[in-house]
Amino acid sequence: MILLNSIDLLAFTDIFQLSNSHLLLTTEIAQADPSIVLAGVLLSAVTIYFAAKLGGEICAAFDFPSVLGELIAGVIVGVSVLHFLVFPEGGIEAGDSLIMQFLQMTTDLSPENVAVTFHLQSEVISLLAEIGVIVLLFEIGLESNLKELMEVGTQALTVAIIGVIAPFAAGTAGLMIIFNIPAIPAIFAGAALTATSIGITSRVLSEMGQLTSKEGQIILGAAVIDDVLGVIVLAVAASLAKTGEVDVGNVIYLIISATGFLVGAILLGNVFNRSFVKIVELLKTRGGLIVPAITFAFVMAYLATAIHLEAILGAFAAGLVLDETDRRKELQRLVEPVSDMLVPIFFIAVGAKTNLGVLNPINPENREGLIIAAFLITVAIIGKVLAGFTVFGQPDLDKLAIGVGMIPRGEVGLVFVAVGASSGVLSPALEAGIVVMVIATTFIAPALLRVVFKSNEETVEASSEIPSVAETTS
Amino acid sequence: MILLNSIDLLAFTDIFQLSNSHLLLTTEIAQADPSIVLAGVLLSAVTIYFAAKLGGEICAAFDFPSVLGELIAGVIVGVSVLHFLVFPEGGIEAGDSLIMQFLQMTTDLSPENVAVTFHLQSEVISLLAEIGVIVLLFEIGLESNLKELMEVGTQALTVAIIGVIAPFAAGTAGLMIIFNIPAIPAIFAGAALTATSIGITSRVLSEMGQLTSKEGQIILGAAVIDDVLGVIVLAVAASLAKTGEVDVGNVIYLIISATGFLVGAILLGNVFNRSFVKIVELLKTRGGLIVPAITFAFVMAYLATAIHLEAILGAFAAGLVLDETDRRKELQRLVEPVSDMLVPIFFIAVGAKTNLGVLNPINPENREGLIIAAFLITVAIIGKVLAGFTVFGQPDLDKLAIGVGMIPRGEVGLVFVAVGASSGVLSPALEAGIVVMVIATTFIAPALLRVVFKSNEETVEASSEIPSVAETTS
Repeated sequence: MILLNSIDLLAFTDIFQLSNSHLLLTTEIAQADPSIVLAGVLLSAVTIYFAAKLGGEICAAFDFPSVLGELIAGVIVGVSVLHFLVFPEGGIEAGDSLIMQFLQMTTDLSPENVAVTFHLQSEVISLLAEIGVIVLLFEIGLESNLKELMEVGTQALTVAIIGVIAPFAAGTAGLMIIFNIPAIPAIFAGAALTATSIGITSRVLSEMGQLTSKEGQIILGAAVIDDVLGVIVLAVAASLAKTGEVDVGNVIYLIISATGFLVGAILLGNVFNRSFVKIVELLKTRGGLIVPAITFAFVMAYLATAIHLEAILGAFAAGLVLDETDRRKELQRLVEPVSDMLVPIFFIAVGAKTNLGVLNPINPENREGLIIAAFLITVAIIGKVLAGFTVFGQPDLDKLAIGVGMIPRGEVGLVFVAVGASSGVLSPALEAGIVVMVIATTFIAPALLRVVFKSNEETVEASSEIPSVAETTS
Repeated sequence: MILLNSIDLLAFTDIFQLSNSHLLLTTEIAQADPSIVLAGVLLSAVTIYFAAKLGGEICAAFDFPSVLGELIAGVIVGVSVLHFLVFPEGGIEAGDSLIMQFLQMTTDLSPENVAVTFHLQSEVISLLAEIGVIVLLFEIGLESNLKELMEVGTQALTVAIIGVIAPFAAGTAGLMIIFNIPAIPAIFAGAALTATSIGITSRVLSEMGQLTSKEGQIILGAAVIDDVLGVIVLAVAASLAKTGEVDVGNVIYLIISATGFLVGAILLGNVFNRSFVKIVELLKTRGGLIVPAITFAFVMAYLATAIHLEAILGAFAAGLVLDETDRRKELQRLVEPVSDMLVPIFFIAVGAKTNLGVLNPINPENREGLIIAAFLITVAIIGKVLAGFTVFGQPDLDKLAIGVGMIPRGEVGLVFVAVGASSGVLSPALEAGIVVMVIATTFIAPALLRVVFKSNEETVEASSEIPSVAETTS
């Protein structure tokens, strides 16, 4: 079952920790001076906010989603380049962290406490990042409308299912036939191709004001369903890798609990929102709206985790529920600064934890991985774009945009890598190949989405200029 | 120097950890499942917000500061009563935490990982509490005006100095003469009497809309100076307890760095605020005002920690600096929801960590402590009230209110206890006595302040009704 828990966001890093430097750590938590841990967290936060603003502003200046800038800035301050913000994974030690070195210079941090201080502050930042993406999905849930989401339900379902089957089948088959990779690792790599990063997709859509567009709604709905399917696919792939056979009972449990959770949340939406408003109206002290709202989001996130779904699904459901209330506008205004403070921690952390070392072709070990990566990236993009074009009965929808919206694998893809790595079925080359695929799709998608939606707008303008033609063509 | 670092807020608990259960912990951080740690943090946060709202609303309904309700609610959910939210201190184990027991029932938390999961989630909550009080003091800094604070500077300085000397002298002398306690422990207990909890005082004042009143400004200024003096007094007491003599060089270093920091921050205020506004105007993406502002607060908090002051002093200074900008109103609106989410964590944690066990007179061990406590409480209250009456040349000021405002020792007082405990000079009875004094002053003050300011308002109304009398009396 640890495999299922480990699907939680960013968990992959901690699995790496398990298999690496963490085991070398014998110092006890006790020895860490709390005020120095605080100082380390403050320095990390300052680095994160500085990088996020710089990267985000530059990208925005070039009319690209600022989240892309945050991801890139994260890579620059992280393990790949500057080593300001590094996390104990892949053999990274406290000594590799510039922030820890700076702490040693400016505080009384004694050498024997560096390791434990490093691990504790990394733990806190990783957890703040997880809370950040929980708040992000809560906000996305508030912005999106349950009824509109239901209307596109069938399209979203098709996009999600095809978006899982197509890359999985093509990826697995291709790896077995072209690269002669045995079945189980091939299936695992195929499974990694099915993921969609709801965090990145939704943030980009929201930034471009496309979240409430029909395309945006389909992408969001499909990404949510994809997250649920991803949990199941990973469970299957993992039990295959572990025992060579599928744990059917577990899969059935997952399907039932996942469906039950989402349906339950939707039904709850029509009942709870009224009682929520009643409760809120009773509260007279400060924070009488934001505190109950985020408490509700945390409760739902906890419930999702407890039934082995992702915490973010619970937070998203909570947002959808409260979206139905008449305090929604005010709530959105209040959540905004909170998410402005927390969300960048998530995206900078994702970037900082991304090790671009695997992209270096001078290192011969990387070459085979890069060839596999080239194949996986092609399948990853074509598979999801294909899924976009399966949207039926909507001639005037930008199907390309829908497909592109499903491309980023992000942190979810990396969870697959982590589970694969810990199961030991992946060869170094294949693992590197998957990592490169995840990185590429994650960084390409925001840029691509921007381009697609831009051209989309232009064509809309064009068609509106000459309606007669638009009519005849349709 | 560890003694000085340990003065940081809430650090006392971690010193207890050092001396207690933490040392028993041999499990490694690595073994904790990150998604279960997240689940634990989510459950703790839900408990905190539920308790904070319930307690705060009840107190507000009876027209008392809601912070009092939060402190009491914290005691109820904490180690003293319900054991929902407990922290690894004073021999508390993971098994004592109802949240951990609940996690074991609802997740795959394996018995051997309970301890490390408990410690990690406690670490995260403690750190969020520290960030909470940092944001609180930043907000208080934004609400208060540097110029007005400077105007009452001399009065504040007198109140602070008398408020340190009076309780220290009376406390130390009394303990030596009445209770025949040796010099060094007596001096330590006296030192604990000098503290003032700026967190509790400022929150109560802000809730009652008294922060900008002349009394409020004097209390706040005195509390800030008292925090600086406290750092020095603790250093003296600690080095006395350790070596039997005072480390003069260290004391001089502290006085210089503390003064330098505060003066520097004030000078900075007249230069940086303009450049800050310029920077903010360049930012076009979301969070363009709140993120730079809180980043600045974190930088100042880090600097304060680095020179062995409290992080909250840096955050307060940052607030004062940005208070000078013309974006202040907007910034206050944005900081409010962030502080609404973070600040309750601090007050609930303070309450939850307060063990009322020492108040139980049925336990014979407590009796001597309670007798000492009765004496200490008297000195603690009289000493600070006396300091309030030293305000000169302000006949129409409510000097009683000023004195009462300085009464709560709160978390700062507990830091003294913790350092004393770790130095081993305090007898169990004396330590218990100090703890009871800290608890009593912390919980009495908010209620007392409310009463004093209420009567104050009434007299003002009365005097305004018959101004002639008011004139003749003055």
